[in-house]
Amino acid sequence: MPKLPVLADHEIDRRLAVLSEWMRQGDAITRTFRFAGFPEATAFVQQLVAPAEGINHHPDVDVRYDRVIITLSTHESGGLTENDFALAEQIDRLVG
Amino acid sequence: MPKLPVLADHEIDRRLAVLSEWMRQGDAITRTFRFAGFPEATAFVQQLVAPAEGINHHPDVDVRYDRVIITLSTHESGGLTENDFALAEQIDRLVG
Repeated sequence: MPKLPVLADHEIDRRLAVLSEWMRQGDAITRTFRFAGFPEATAFVQQLVAPAEGINHHPDVDVRYDRVIITLSTHESGGLTENDFALAEQIDRLVG
Repeated sequence: MPKLPVLADHEIDRRLAVLSEWMRQGDAITRTFRFAGFPEATAFVQQLVAPAEGINHHPDVDVRYDRVIITLSTHESGGLTENDFALAEQIDRLVG
């Protein structure tokens, strides 16, 4: 499968304008989700499997008690691609 | 509930001699688990709930595709306590 092209800055900005909860951090985008506690946070991690496997693109996931920090980047392309924003959109849908 | 006392270095070394897969990193201990893929890695994260809630002590959990990096420390005590080693032992039991 060919590598997805890295998006230009203005393309990234355009997408982040819609995904308002996500922040750019260099070659990645990140969002922090907060839950009632650790069981709820890990239940959310479980819900990430379907979208991640569906597009074969996997988030970096950090669980800190009641918080889940998701970081998305396309390592093999060396930056942000359509895949990252497709996954961000699907993850947002999980929390309504 | 009173704060648990921080363990002395020789106590930490004695416990790590038994928990041979864990490494000390300053005020924390860490172990990396590897799985077949992302679904298996997140299923393992789910399994952490029972021991963590059981002793009310929660690991920092980083999921990186097929790897789960667990970091234990007792923040409110400012170092490693009995709780960290109790949780490490229970986590080790999850993977046999």
